[in-house]
Amino acid sequence: MKTITLRIKPLDIETGKPIAIMHEEDAEKIGHVAGSRIKVYSQKGTFTIITNTTRNLVAPGELGTCKEATCEIGLEAGSEVKVTLAPRPASANAIKKKLDGKVLTQQEIDSIIRDIVADNLTATELAAFVTAVYTRGMTVDEIVFMVRSMVESGEKLEIERRPILDVHSIGGVPGNKYALLTVPIVSAAGLTVPKTSSRAITSAAGTADVMEVLAPVSLELEEIKAIVEKIGAVLVWGGALRLAPADDIIIRAERVLAIDPTPQLLASVMAKKLAVGAEKIVIDIPTGSGAKVETIEEARRLAHDFIELARRLGVQLEAAITYGGQPIGYAVGPALEAREALETLMGMNGPGSLIEKATGLAGLMLELGGVTPIGFGKQMALEILKSGKAYEQMKRIIEAQGGDPNVKIDDIPVGDKVEVLRAPVSGYIKQIDNHRINEIARAAGAPEHKGAGIKLLMKEGRKVEKGDPILEIYAEHESKLDEALDLARTHPPVRIEGMLIERISHSPRWE
Amino acid sequence: MKTITLRIKPLDIETGKPIAIMHEEDAEKIGHVAGSRIKVYSQKGTFTIITNTTRNLVAPGELGTCKEATCEIGLEAGSEVKVTLAPRPASANAIKKKLDGKVLTQQEIDSIIRDIVADNLTATELAAFVTAVYTRGMTVDEIVFMVRSMVESGEKLEIERRPILDVHSIGGVPGNKYALLTVPIVSAAGLTVPKTSSRAITSAAGTADVMEVLAPVSLELEEIKAIVEKIGAVLVWGGALRLAPADDIIIRAERVLAIDPTPQLLASVMAKKLAVGAEKIVIDIPTGSGAKVETIEEARRLAHDFIELARRLGVQLEAAITYGGQPIGYAVGPALEAREALETLMGMNGPGSLIEKATGLAGLMLELGGVTPIGFGKQMALEILKSGKAYEQMKRIIEAQGGDPNVKIDDIPVGDKVEVLRAPVSGYIKQIDNHRINEIARAAGAPEHKGAGIKLLMKEGRKVEKGDPILEIYAEHESKLDEALDLARTHPPVRIEGMLIERISHSPRWE
Repeated sequence: MKTITLRIKPLDIETGKPIAIMHEEDAEKIGHVAGSRIKVYSQKGTFTIITNTTRNLVAPGELGTCKEATCEIGLEAGSEVKVTLAPRPASANAIKKKLDGKVLTQQEIDSIIRDIVADNLTATELAAFVTAVYTRGMTVDEIVFMVRSMVESGEKLEIERRPILDVHSIGGVPGNKYALLTVPIVSAAGLTVPKTSSRAITSAAGTADVMEVLAPVSLELEEIKAIVEKIGAVLVWGGALRLAPADDIIIRAERVLAIDPTPQLLASVMAKKLAVGAEKIVIDIPTGSGAKVETIEEARRLAHDFIELARRLGVQLEAAITYGGQPIGYAVGPALEAREALETLMGMNGPGSLIEKATGLAGLMLELGGVTPIGFGKQMALEILKSGKAYEQMKRIIEAQGGDPNVKIDDIPVGDKVEVLRAPVSGYIKQIDNHRINEIARAAGAPEHKGAGIKLLMKEGRKVEKGDPILEIYAEHESKLDEALDLARTHPPVRIEGMLIERISHSPRWE
Repeated sequence: MKTITLRIKPLDIETGKPIAIMHEEDAEKIGHVAGSRIKVYSQKGTFTIITNTTRNLVAPGELGTCKEATCEIGLEAGSEVKVTLAPRPASANAIKKKLDGKVLTQQEIDSIIRDIVADNLTATELAAFVTAVYTRGMTVDEIVFMVRSMVESGEKLEIERRPILDVHSIGGVPGNKYALLTVPIVSAAGLTVPKTSSRAITSAAGTADVMEVLAPVSLELEEIKAIVEKIGAVLVWGGALRLAPADDIIIRAERVLAIDPTPQLLASVMAKKLAVGAEKIVIDIPTGSGAKVETIEEARRLAHDFIELARRLGVQLEAAITYGGQPIGYAVGPALEAREALETLMGMNGPGSLIEKATGLAGLMLELGGVTPIGFGKQMALEILKSGKAYEQMKRIIEAQGGDPNVKIDDIPVGDKVEVLRAPVSGYIKQIDNHRINEIARAAGAPEHKGAGIKLLMKEGRKVEKGDPILEIYAEHESKLDEALDLARTHPPVRIEGMLIERISHSPRWE
């Protein structure tokens, strides 16, 4: 292994982790490739550092060090260090093995996850891992190893109550505020539900965005633990808690590549749930046109994979395939959804699709939690909702997280720039397009403008006359309303068709 | 698409290309992922820039710009720009398609190669492309498209002579200095051979490293053109000529991942050859233990792939499978190899394996070039070599490139720190390990120290007595010699075994 001597040149750059930079000529001498690792032998010790190459930032013979590298390692400006190419880490060999379509061991997966969390993989290696999982797949064993590694390498919520239940929706459907009902219902029955959720990435509102309208959702792990131990539930944002943090890093690379490999999806969901200590889990798989899962066959395969994985991980899991071909309820966007959820909890006219879904999922959880016999869960959930106990529990959650438990529907501000979209023809509402609803709500300002979004006035199957109002767009700013309207006009979110009466031709066959 | 307003904060960083950096909070607002692209609307126009995220380098509301971004775009410190997420480029969609195992069109491959050359792909996207080609493979059509794209996106050598021949060895075998004989032989017969070659990456000497001992090899494209048009040949380094530059970038990512996908290998070789205008190409596939290709079956498959690809690209190609299980000739390392090549050209005792290989490949080229009937090429090559015409032509090449044509063998300095390795037991030389020979020569200082390397004193099959000298290690520095000796002792490069006389047991079968 070739060694060269370089002089330390501290650079005024912060990179968030120790990074060095060397001249391309020096890199060539030791066979170093931009973005891979060098070993630095200094008087302070030996270090492995990811290093880039340059033609102008440092001269040949110099090793530029970012602030983190200079300070953490304590290298002195002008001091000499010996530099060689670092050997490939075990994780890089494991990634190569996966690229070759081979099955990884627990140890190999551990090395990858550990290096992902420690930020020791180059962007090239991380991308190779993500694409290898995408193209080669993973065995159930490998996914089990990955879940365990991801959980072990992060923070954990340690709660002194049993059993701990959780629920997760695969997502993709606008207006999916079910958790704001399901979590209070289940916890009102005495079960424990430490529900963490995400903010919207491509949709108009994530559960965390909606809940944030009613109470703060960025809580510390210790606060969450205290609240759950006291009242049995939270509805918080999981993003900054470092629960299975490898998952967040992997998902970022997947988003750049617009891929979502099933093994990673499975591992991701299970790791987040295991990290909060969940032992009994309900997975909601919304299925239909414009949802993440479009066909029943696909949904069944995914459900089966989840159940098998849970069995191997020693937790109980039930998967529910729900209709996801149009938005849930009528409201889309943080404030509008918070209003709809609260209205439904308060016992006013809640939309059937929302009550149906929230109580259905809650019912499965109640049955898993052993507080009602199999087959009676949904009825029990409905009773808890109708009795007002779920609302009382929601008030406790809101208060514990620091919100106003007595907030009234009209206290929740929604955008005051509103426009109605009307049916351009008479006919039946054939389809409400999930993607377009999300895009229009986002154009109107959601999820950042909490008051922006869409209120549907009708759902699929309804007969409309030309000129009937079919939805309202809410925005906080006129310009955003215009943007949303433009989009709605060029990409209509609702398809209306005349009822087709099949015309059977006179057939000569039986003559 | 969400838009935010940021204030320009120029940073004192040179990155080699326009890069910006924004605070993670701002990135989250527009759904931006570190390392992907933003669109910047400024008074100077609209630009798409690859952007990283930070928690400390800039504050929320600021857009940090590297020197290249600040200067090229002309953004003023403190001025306000509108920023949105840039749409995914066509190349990113094409990469996703390849990841999904689909066949790419000419247009899609063009978009990828164009963005690679323009440095418009993120490290994640480039890695995904490389791994997709590795795991999904490519059809011959796709490889044809890729070769054409790679050639079109780079510089080309335009020579006014016909026919243009070229030769390329797949490599991996130490001591492979054949081109220093083959190129002068073929061009001495009046054919045109603009031979570009590479420097060593993992081996002890590339053709360019060896030739550099005799003459400069880093020539400009215009100089190369002038020399080839005058004397019919060059032996230069191809690395900085920007011939098919996408190839160099792709190979760098492959090296990080330690993969070498066959479609890319095929495209790489053909693109480099087509970029110099070659119409008749000989490919050498050294085959044997420790070579890049280890089995005859693999070599035949590769030969077939090359021939099919050449047919589709409208060029003539012959592939030769040569023995690559031990070093070619006796010398390994730039100066030692240059000496051996020159000695052989001068008609002194050249090693059989080198003469055999160099004239064999030259013979195929002479036949392809139409200066001799099929079957007579090798004999003609041997005559050109023995007549001294090849040496005369080599002198012309050395002189044209700026070296001393009358250099004598003893004028070429080799390392003066020499140690002999002796046989530890009596027996037959069973194997000379290519990898270990390379590693020991590199430990001794090759290819950077031109005089460092190994001189074999015996080859495979020879009988040796315990204590017989089997090889010499040359180094320019005592410390490097020690390093090489240590390595040779712990990892012996030569395997000696007693001749095994198979003992046939008395068999009762025919009784």
